[in-house]
Amino acid sequence: MTEDHEDQPESRTPRKSLVVVNTGNGKGKTTAALGVLFRAWGRGYNVCMLQFIKSTTSNYGENRAAKKIGMEIISLGGGFTWLSKDIEKDKALARELWAQCKTKIASGDYDVVALDEFTYPLAYGWLPTDEVIEFLKQRPQRTHVIITGRDAPQELIDYADLVTEMREVKHPFQQGIKAQPGIEF
Amino acid sequence: MTEDHEDQPESRTPRKSLVVVNTGNGKGKTTAALGVLFRAWGRGYNVCMLQFIKSTTSNYGENRAAKKIGMEIISLGGGFTWLSKDIEKDKALARELWAQCKTKIASGDYDVVALDEFTYPLAYGWLPTDEVIEFLKQRPQRTHVIITGRDAPQELIDYADLVTEMREVKHPFQQGIKAQPGIEF
Repeated sequence: MTEDHEDQPESRTPRKSLVVVNTGNGKGKTTAALGVLFRAWGRGYNVCMLQFIKSTTSNYGENRAAKKIGMEIISLGGGFTWLSKDIEKDKALARELWAQCKTKIASGDYDVVALDEFTYPLAYGWLPTDEVIEFLKQRPQRTHVIITGRDAPQELIDYADLVTEMREVKHPFQQGIKAQPGIEF
Repeated sequence: MTEDHEDQPESRTPRKSLVVVNTGNGKGKTTAALGVLFRAWGRGYNVCMLQFIKSTTSNYGENRAAKKIGMEIISLGGGFTWLSKDIEKDKALARELWAQCKTKIASGDYDVVALDEFTYPLAYGWLPTDEVIEFLKQRPQRTHVIITGRDAPQELIDYADLVTEMREVKHPFQQGIKAQPGIEF
């Protein structure tokens, strides 16, 4: 992340890309990843988010915002909801989506790639966590990877550089308040 | 947040603005607030962030990103670091900065206002939390308020609608890795 950005005052910072995990049952896992992408975009870095859960036909605030500024947010799997009853089908789809992620990361074109809700195929055993870690170990040196979602496997936590648990202290659903646009989606 | 945005499919969502608190010792408190602002901006909402700690002369990624898209991020207090030894001076400054926040919120011009690192003047007793809560209770109905920072006072947590604790599970500083631009600032 240095030589491409000689105008950056921090260009002498040693290059060490990170694997970041945002997990836990609270809000802010995806949103914090989005904030990191926005901030990095502000520095002129190449960033993208690959979404494992959100529907491709949705029009979430983040998709609109990303579209406005030309940031790549790609919804994988055509409305994939992980609700299939056919585990072999789920595994095949997970593998196909992971192949797309690997292509993006391996391209070396990105400073930050976020894999949104990627913990689910790992937690459900549809993708072997050790295989994912082996790939991440060999990723291009410039590329930070952010993984979000509940129930991050311990193996991934052990490997990651930066892990934060977003813990729900209080949620408006508890008080019967509906999700609010602009805040929650 | 409805009648100003008739093109939004969610325009029938009942209007209920939230007070959101991102606290805890982990990463992602400010970044998640930034993600919410970015997402809301994507919907055409008016948003701003008022920063209590960051220096006005800094050039953080978020400031660059915000400048690029015309999002307001205002650093209060001229490099205010809360390191004064003079508590009366700290209190006076906190009150002055809070007055600026109140003006922004009370204007009714914003759908989301983020008060970044605002828990510190509360936790240090420089601003009375009950006074802040009384003001928030009377804020314009359209305006969500997000407050970030460690050690959010219990009184504020009790009042807020949505509270998340960002808990540090693992941080690269522990392994001697420097903060990385694009990820951490």
